[in-house]
Amino acid sequence: MKNYQQLKTIFKRLSHLTYIHRIMMWDEAVMMPIGAEESRTNAVATLSGLMHKTLTLKKVKKLIDNAKQENLPDFWDKANLALMEKEYLKAVCVSPKLTEELTISRMASEQAWRKYREQNNWQGFLPYFEKTFRLAKEVAQRQAEVFHQDPYDVLIDQFSPGFNQKSIDPIFSGLKKSIPVLLQQIVERQSTDKLNIPKGPFAIEKQKALGMKAMEALQFDFQHGRLDVSHHPFCSGIQTDVRITTRYREDEFLSSLEGICHETGHALYEQGLPRNWMDQPVGQAGHSMTMHESQSLLVEMQVCRSLPFFQHLAPIAQNLFGQQDALVAENLYKLSTRVKPGFIRVDADEVTYPLHIILRYETEKNLVNGSLSIQDLPAWWDEHMQKYLGVTTLGNNKNGVMQDVHWPAGLFGYFPAYTLGRLVGAQLFATFIKLHPDFFDKAKTGDFHLLKKWLNENIHNHASSLPTDDLMKKVTGESLNPEYFINHIKQRYLGR
Amino acid sequence: MKNYQQLKTIFKRLSHLTYIHRIMMWDEAVMMPIGAEESRTNAVATLSGLMHKTLTLKKVKKLIDNAKQENLPDFWDKANLALMEKEYLKAVCVSPKLTEELTISRMASEQAWRKYREQNNWQGFLPYFEKTFRLAKEVAQRQAEVFHQDPYDVLIDQFSPGFNQKSIDPIFSGLKKSIPVLLQQIVERQSTDKLNIPKGPFAIEKQKALGMKAMEALQFDFQHGRLDVSHHPFCSGIQTDVRITTRYREDEFLSSLEGICHETGHALYEQGLPRNWMDQPVGQAGHSMTMHESQSLLVEMQVCRSLPFFQHLAPIAQNLFGQQDALVAENLYKLSTRVKPGFIRVDADEVTYPLHIILRYETEKNLVNGSLSIQDLPAWWDEHMQKYLGVTTLGNNKNGVMQDVHWPAGLFGYFPAYTLGRLVGAQLFATFIKLHPDFFDKAKTGDFHLLKKWLNENIHNHASSLPTDDLMKKVTGESLNPEYFINHIKQRYLGR
Repeated sequence: MKNYQQLKTIFKRLSHLTYIHRIMMWDEAVMMPIGAEESRTNAVATLSGLMHKTLTLKKVKKLIDNAKQENLPDFWDKANLALMEKEYLKAVCVSPKLTEELTISRMASEQAWRKYREQNNWQGFLPYFEKTFRLAKEVAQRQAEVFHQDPYDVLIDQFSPGFNQKSIDPIFSGLKKSIPVLLQQIVERQSTDKLNIPKGPFAIEKQKALGMKAMEALQFDFQHGRLDVSHHPFCSGIQTDVRITTRYREDEFLSSLEGICHETGHALYEQGLPRNWMDQPVGQAGHSMTMHESQSLLVEMQVCRSLPFFQHLAPIAQNLFGQQDALVAENLYKLSTRVKPGFIRVDADEVTYPLHIILRYETEKNLVNGSLSIQDLPAWWDEHMQKYLGVTTLGNNKNGVMQDVHWPAGLFGYFPAYTLGRLVGAQLFATFIKLHPDFFDKAKTGDFHLLKKWLNENIHNHASSLPTDDLMKKVTGESLNPEYFINHIKQRYLGR
Repeated sequence: MKNYQQLKTIFKRLSHLTYIHRIMMWDEAVMMPIGAEESRTNAVATLSGLMHKTLTLKKVKKLIDNAKQENLPDFWDKANLALMEKEYLKAVCVSPKLTEELTISRMASEQAWRKYREQNNWQGFLPYFEKTFRLAKEVAQRQAEVFHQDPYDVLIDQFSPGFNQKSIDPIFSGLKKSIPVLLQQIVERQSTDKLNIPKGPFAIEKQKALGMKAMEALQFDFQHGRLDVSHHPFCSGIQTDVRITTRYREDEFLSSLEGICHETGHALYEQGLPRNWMDQPVGQAGHSMTMHESQSLLVEMQVCRSLPFFQHLAPIAQNLFGQQDALVAENLYKLSTRVKPGFIRVDADEVTYPLHIILRYETEKNLVNGSLSIQDLPAWWDEHMQKYLGVTTLGNNKNGVMQDVHWPAGLFGYFPAYTLGRLVGAQLFATFIKLHPDFFDKAKTGDFHLLKKWLNENIHNHASSLPTDDLMKKVTGESLNPEYFINHIKQRYLGR
């Protein structure tokens, strides 16, 4: 296993550089003074170039070829070697120059996005977006040749290995049919609900304290992580140093809380990965963002938008913000499960959420295959928002096509992972709750520990050693089945 | 200039990695959750190894040799090439293995220092300290052979180029004679002063607001920097992203304020460096920590411990903390110029401060030449503290030999830069105030802009293009002369 051991050393070094890369990106989003943008972009581009160079050294190819002959006895090592080869093949077909160009362009367009989104300035943002898309597509095309795949499938596979347009199309078509029917029934049913809107302002320090109480209840490990503020909530870092962020508005506190719960789901996954594989590809959770989003959405949607969750949290909120009727658990639960079509994906309820994703999926698909051009995006967006959600984003690009950081950051092909992850999460949770029918009774009193324990043992421990489909069969007894999600929606929102 | 241009590209990449290295170290001290220590150490060691490898590539030697034949016409380019060669020679004689070992040991001993200092546990800390010292000495010995110097001179030169034991000894001997005499007179003179101690608690948020007001007055550029909290105050980053830190105590606010003023002096230097040389060795301020400390100490001691400074700041402090007699300018000035021998270097007044440095200088000297062993440090420390400052640190290692982060962090040879810098700062300020006799009149009203302007033009703009002695002659008309400092002390504290 001499060759494989050498590979492990190289990938260990790469994991160190990945950690550094993530902290630098976290720092840029959370800490960096605005005047350092150019310096930061140059520095990170140099780092990315170095990582690319390390990964594509000639000897890596030779070591991989030789290691394949070494008949690794261990299942994890085999999976690790396969992931090493995939990473190598994806990188080696792209020149260092193109890698650095894409890095610089991604960072520049993300910086431009922060500025121009604020101004609702689509034209200002356009050239940055076009460049990043062009370079990202170029990379995908090169990888597509190597893997004999369609370029958009390559982009999907990057975040959701095991999925492609052929497997996603029927799933999303099904949701496109079933959700509007459910949506209409739910909106009608909720139309008689009396909502009591909590009165602010809600001091940011208190919102943070509340969020941290939720994180504690969910068993986030503060020895190995922290909570901060950024434009767009995210989770980054590595298993020993997990950084989650949220954003606060003083007029209401539920959206920051929900963001924190979502990112805590990601964080529990990272913190639950097996420590002895932490610096190898197989030990990462990030190989499948579908699995990653399954964890965040399971925690946010199944657990933290439940009545028992608010039964635990409402007294804490009242303690922080002062007594008011709107802060009782039943009302907070109603607010957090209110269904209403809107502009913003991250603020969407769980019923309309998949429609936001389907729009993005169809958009990416058509952008990559060339049947849609970037210039036409605002009109396309408006047309589809009207069709799917009955709202117009005409002239409101800030809350339309410019709302997400993903495309400016060069993350094309990511979006399907949210809805695929949501479906996976619903299916996993159905299994969990069957095994632990008393979970919500305990949760009411603040005891959520069964959740983390079960996820640690059944999902997190496996890291990237199993394909998504194998893991689903192992844990739930069947392949991905969207019915679990549909049933959850029917049960929670229509009482059946 | 083909060879030189290639060198510039390599050193530009190195400057990017240096920026990343600094942010990672800042993050470790300010942001990192405690459980990430080991991951962080490994990651930074890999990065240091990569930087070392980049700097010591065989082609670098060849490019330097060839570039020397290219007869660079520009003065800055010449100085840049000389610094490149020095960096190369210092690095190439040390193996990548030793470099990584030292990095890991430095980070481990700094982490151990945070823990064991708290516990006043010298024995727990000792093995970490010994290892870091042994490795740092090994590096110095290899460099000493290359440069035909004494190992401790190599360590000094690292931070204070142009200085060595031969030039420092007479300066420090002079101070060892003159300061005790002045000290006695000052303590006697101040013995009748009536001091009014401000009554706390002083909320940390308010202290931070006060510190930021001081930074604003001194013209810190918040577009290119920020203020945070760490165990030991420091300034790091690069000119477009300057990170300063302080630490707060709720029972008093002057020490955090003075720390902020000190680090702001460093920050003004960094932010004032010429932008077009930012990614080359000659464009850095860090080549001379003596010059760097001259800037921090000039700002802290000459400007921010003056009556006019407090005439500007006292009303702001009263506004934040509420009215009390102790917060009038005259009293704050008295408190900040109170002379009293004590344990802690960073809390020392400017009169006794050099004695703290001289102790450290003599300690390092004897540690490196082998006439003092690390195990004997606590006894040695106590003996010299009694001799120089009349205080004992017996059994109080926390506030004795364990008080500073420098040695745990592997920074042997740094300390002389503080007192050399203080002397340089006094001499520079004497020149400045002669040219701008109205400075303090304006400062009273919050207008400090002449200071930054003059320092930018006369010091910061030169970055590392001139040796310290040349710069001193150019700006002040003479070489370093400790009399300016002595005169300042006599004037401020003895009214003569």
